[in-house]
Amino acid sequence: MSKGVFITLEGTEGSGKSTQLKTIEQYLQQHNRRYIKVREPGGTPIAEEIRNLLKTPRKDDAMCDTTELLLMYAARAQLVNTVIKPAIEQGVDVICDRHDLSTVAYQGGGRGMDLGEIKVISKVVLGDFKPNLTILLDIDPIKGMQRAKARGELDRFEQSKMDFFVRVRNTYLECAKQDPNIIKVVNGDDTLDNVSSHIRKLLDNLYA
Amino acid sequence: MSKGVFITLEGTEGSGKSTQLKTIEQYLQQHNRRYIKVREPGGTPIAEEIRNLLKTPRKDDAMCDTTELLLMYAARAQLVNTVIKPAIEQGVDVICDRHDLSTVAYQGGGRGMDLGEIKVISKVVLGDFKPNLTILLDIDPIKGMQRAKARGELDRFEQSKMDFFVRVRNTYLECAKQDPNIIKVVNGDDTLDNVSSHIRKLLDNLYA
Repeated sequence: MSKGVFITLEGTEGSGKSTQLKTIEQYLQQHNRRYIKVREPGGTPIAEEIRNLLKTPRKDDAMCDTTELLLMYAARAQLVNTVIKPAIEQGVDVICDRHDLSTVAYQGGGRGMDLGEIKVISKVVLGDFKPNLTILLDIDPIKGMQRAKARGELDRFEQSKMDFFVRVRNTYLECAKQDPNIIKVVNGDDTLDNVSSHIRKLLDNLYA
Repeated sequence: MSKGVFITLEGTEGSGKSTQLKTIEQYLQQHNRRYIKVREPGGTPIAEEIRNLLKTPRKDDAMCDTTELLLMYAARAQLVNTVIKPAIEQGVDVICDRHDLSTVAYQGGGRGMDLGEIKVISKVVLGDFKPNLTILLDIDPIKGMQRAKARGELDRFEQSKMDFFVRVRNTYLECAKQDPNIIKVVNGDDTLDNVSSHIRKLLDNLYA
């Protein structure tokens, strides 16, 4: 039995991830692939509790950057080991809304944490495990924030300032340059039809 | 203003930590030291939530060793950065019930996780920050379990098997050999009076 493939979707707030997740799902359904869909941080009962801890704004205890980083990886370790790897071993594809690259972009690029330290922890958690394809929806952060605001209240990450998102975007693009075989940049500012069509072509190549 | 000192208390279940914590407190009170007392994992609102996640037995999601390790360090990062370091900077002593050495002994020795990986994460979280004195209450694990059972139901860690505690003890003792200036071994099988008297002598030396 052949293994499942691991597809991750990345991008800053408002880049259209939720919409394009549906494009990927539709493609897999049309091609009769067995698949599961997960999100990070989260995707298991323990990881969802960690997600709540990360996302809930609180006044009694300001979360340190290192705490945030380790909670992200704790949730990732649980999801990868108990859900993603077993699925892939059983020939089931996995679509993951955010994965390791988000940590590099947000905690590394955005919060300015040491990228070497992030890599060291990533190595402990993931070893050589990585996605077969990472779709990076790239968007001008100003347009992205306008879209996110239209959806309702912003969470702790979304509240962060605009220059934060500019650093996140730049780190995303820098990583894509360094790993062009896995990370494919899709212009999220294009029309919905063009974005979907670009993603379907990437999936054609992945499954060819 | 001189800095506070950082004292940690270590030992396997039933080694008498709670009792000897009082010996240390009494000593600091008698010597008019300003101090705070914390425990790991825990000691801040976020870290206590992480503690709950670590301690609650659950059937819906078996926690991976790597998840456990990262949650331990997430709680430690929060406690050290928001409570312990600020106290020490302000000249307040800190007594900590378990600290980094517990992770080396339990996750490394007990669960058999890679000690090199633990050190790498410890370095990211703590850098060169370490206790001025670590009191290691050493006890034969069989006697320790008998004491712990007498207190009531065992938690997830306590349920682990006896050979686990033998490995934990051996790792504790190995670390004490490697760092004899900081880690002082106290025979927890001795009479209460002798144990307390040994600890008071260690504190005399620390504050001399």
